Amino acid sequence: MKIVVLKFGGTSVGTVKKIKKVAEIIASYKRKNYKVMVVSSAMRGVTNELIKKSFEISDNFSVSEYDVLVSSGEQMACSLIAGRLIHNGYKSRSWLSWQIPIFTDGIHKNSRINQIRKKKIFEYLKEGGIPIITGFQGINNKGRITTIGRGGSDASAIMIAKFFNAEKCIIYTDVEGVYTTDPNKLKKAKKIKVISYEEMLEMASLGAKVMQPVSIQDARLNRIDIEVRSSFVKKSGTFITKRSNIINNKIVTGISFTQNDSKISLIGVKDKPGVAAAIFKPLSKNLINVDMVVQNISANGKETDLTFTIKTEDLSKTKKIIKENKSIRFRKLLLKKDVSKISVIGVGMISTPGVTFRMFQTLANKKINIQVISTSEIKISVLIDRKNTKKALVALHREFKLDKRK
Amino acid sequence: MKIVVLKFGGTSVGTVKKIKKVAEIIASYKRKNYKVMVVSSAMRGVTNELIKKSFEISDNFSVSEYDVLVSSGEQMACSLIAGRLIHNGYKSRSWLSWQIPIFTDGIHKNSRINQIRKKKIFEYLKEGGIPIITGFQGINNKGRITTIGRGGSDASAIMIAKFFNAEKCIIYTDVEGVYTTDPNKLKKAKKIKVISYEEMLEMASLGAKVMQPVSIQDARLNRIDIEVRSSFVKKSGTFITKRSNIINNKIVTGISFTQNDSKISLIGVKDKPGVAAAIFKPLSKNLINVDMVVQNISANGKETDLTFTIKTEDLSKTKKIIKENKSIRFRKLLLKKDVSKISVIGVGMISTPGVTFRMFQTLANKKINIQVISTSEIKISVLIDRKNTKKALVALHREFKLDKRK
Repeated sequence: MKIVVLKFGGTSVGTVKKIKKVAEIIASYKRKNYKVMVVSSAMRGVTNELIKKSFEISDNFSVSEYDVLVSSGEQMACSLIAGRLIHNGYKSRSWLSWQIPIFTDGIHKNSRINQIRKKKIFEYLKEGGIPIITGFQGINNKGRITTIGRGGSDASAIMIAKFFNAEKCIIYTDVEGVYTTDPNKLKKAKKIKVISYEEMLEMASLGAKVMQPVSIQDARLNRIDIEVRSSFVKKSGTFITKRSNIINNKIVTGISFTQNDSKISLIGVKDKPGVAAAIFKPLSKNLINVDMVVQNISANGKETDLTFTIKTEDLSKTKKIIKENKSIRFRKLLLKKDVSKISVIGVGMISTPGVTFRMFQTLANKKINIQVISTSEIKISVLIDRKNTKKALVALHREFKLDKRK
Repeated sequence: MKIVVLKFGGTSVGTVKKIKKVAEIIASYKRKNYKVMVVSSAMRGVTNELIKKSFEISDNFSVSEYDVLVSSGEQMACSLIAGRLIHNGYKSRSWLSWQIPIFTDGIHKNSRINQIRKKKIFEYLKEGGIPIITGFQGINNKGRITTIGRGGSDASAIMIAKFFNAEKCIIYTDVEGVYTTDPNKLKKAKKIKVISYEEMLEMASLGAKVMQPVSIQDARLNRIDIEVRSSFVKKSGTFITKRSNIINNKIVTGISFTQNDSKISLIGVKDKPGVAAAIFKPLSKNLINVDMVVQNISANGKETDLTFTIKTEDLSKTKKIIKENKSIRFRKLLLKKDVSKISVIGVGMISTPGVTFRMFQTLANKKINIQVISTSEIKISVLIDRKNTKKALVALHREFKLDKRK
């Protein structure tokens, strides 16, 4: 059975007109003799409207009722898509997660799919039907509706692709694919034809808004090939697959940036073992994620400076923790919000020396000061002044020949 | 177990503010040590909005997907009510019809509840929980969502009251109860304290918009006592019960009127057996409901006039059928839209002679001509010129002492 899973995001089904378009896309796969399984999000805006109502009812709205409330959004979208396919003469129907069922574990608002019963859907596919399945939800072992916190409907599509052994999983969204960098920031950004899960993970967690990291991770673990493409433009998108499927790895696949980081520097920290731990322990306890860290070499063997970055939303909380914790001693606390983290990403780096040097040299040529550096096997991130973001992007995009990528 | 079923209509849960009010009403019964079961409609406007979308998708939208689509409205409302009760410290949760389950038979969009599993809800009630149950829906034997065509959430509440052997079934709505006549038309209209199912059926089918006839019929068949009252005003409403529960039957309980009837007269119809049947058969075949009928006494034994009323919406269809059917012969066809049907209703009529006379005399005194008459055991209906509606209402309301009813 040649199965394709098609997932449509909220903007793709945002209006009745768009739902009609989506029905045509679905039909085109059916005509290619695929067994088509569809996963849909709620119509854009619907979920937010429901969440708003829940806030008005209670500032501490029950999580189990929250799941009942918001899951109704996918129910609506799926019935409209199925209704349109039926109108066009196809055999189709909505499948709500409890009708399949799709089982989840974990807590309300933040569950994960752990089992999908295949019998009914397989029978339905054999009869030539096109199932339209509610994304973002399942039922737990008590028969209550649970929503999937992170990853949402993408995660649903990937798990469905896994359980039904789909040949393809196509994520239809409002962008044409994954780009070498944000095309809104840099016009020369090029669509990436193929990218590895690992690179995509770095791209995603660093700012590319195409797919959530948790869904990419699910795809990676289950070896599901994904295509991300637009439901509005008829062009091939970006394939996300395992490294060994990618011939001709580029050194650098893409450049991402974030502007929601803040830099904290503690000046005059005592230079002795355990000092960094003493600082980061209370932060970790408060679920504050420390990203980049740099510690200066001690000049006199007694004192050093410690710099790290956190999400700006955690800034005031972090400040409070540091100031109130008497065991953290320092002379001066510096906070800086107007910073930008730029990351150069590519699996090709592993086998290509000199990328770090090229990156630093490129920024130096443009007189851009690097404040903090962090590296991993497939990425190099630097923290710079926010005002230099565009300049850095332009220079790095050219340096790594992304401008001319085809 | 002292169970009360509370049903809230679309206007009662129309806004977040109103849902908060509804939660207070529910809690007040809980504090009186009732086991409270709640049935809710969708928030006012939501269902219509969904139906509008379905029309935009297809002018012949799949009925099974229609049921999936619109049933999401009750799901939302129930989760918000339960969320509010939880916020207020009560044990509550939404129960979707498939979670109980509530089983239906019949076709999509027009099913009826035929079975309700009691186990889970009884356990939940014993634990002190307040179940908030989706009205207007159930699942069929294939596990698909089906909506209840006529009667909607009222019908759900009544069937739940029946299966759980509830002591009371209270229909919360946007009116204070059933009135002796439409209070918008006649200021002197009084709230009826108690009314029999049969009278209520006549009142409902003749224009009182409080409850749909099918729900009243369900209540009558299952001997469920109902109270209709307002969710906005803290006043007792109208009790609907069996005749034998009503002490001191009034002769006339209420006066209803409709203004959506049309009168059709066929002048010069051959006066022979089978003529009326020849006329009404094609109408019946076309699902046109003939209401009042009068045939003049034949003056010459050869020709007669036949007059009947239909709903105005069926007028052009009826005209077409009569004109195109060659077996229906007549000299002249008269159509009249500006008519009004006034009905005097009361179980007391059965044992009280002279009501018909009093009604006719009252209208005659006001110089109101009666065009057609029809009677049943507990009602007398007359067709008059529409312009006389108010005058007739005022006179009849006074004649039968409804003005002074307490």
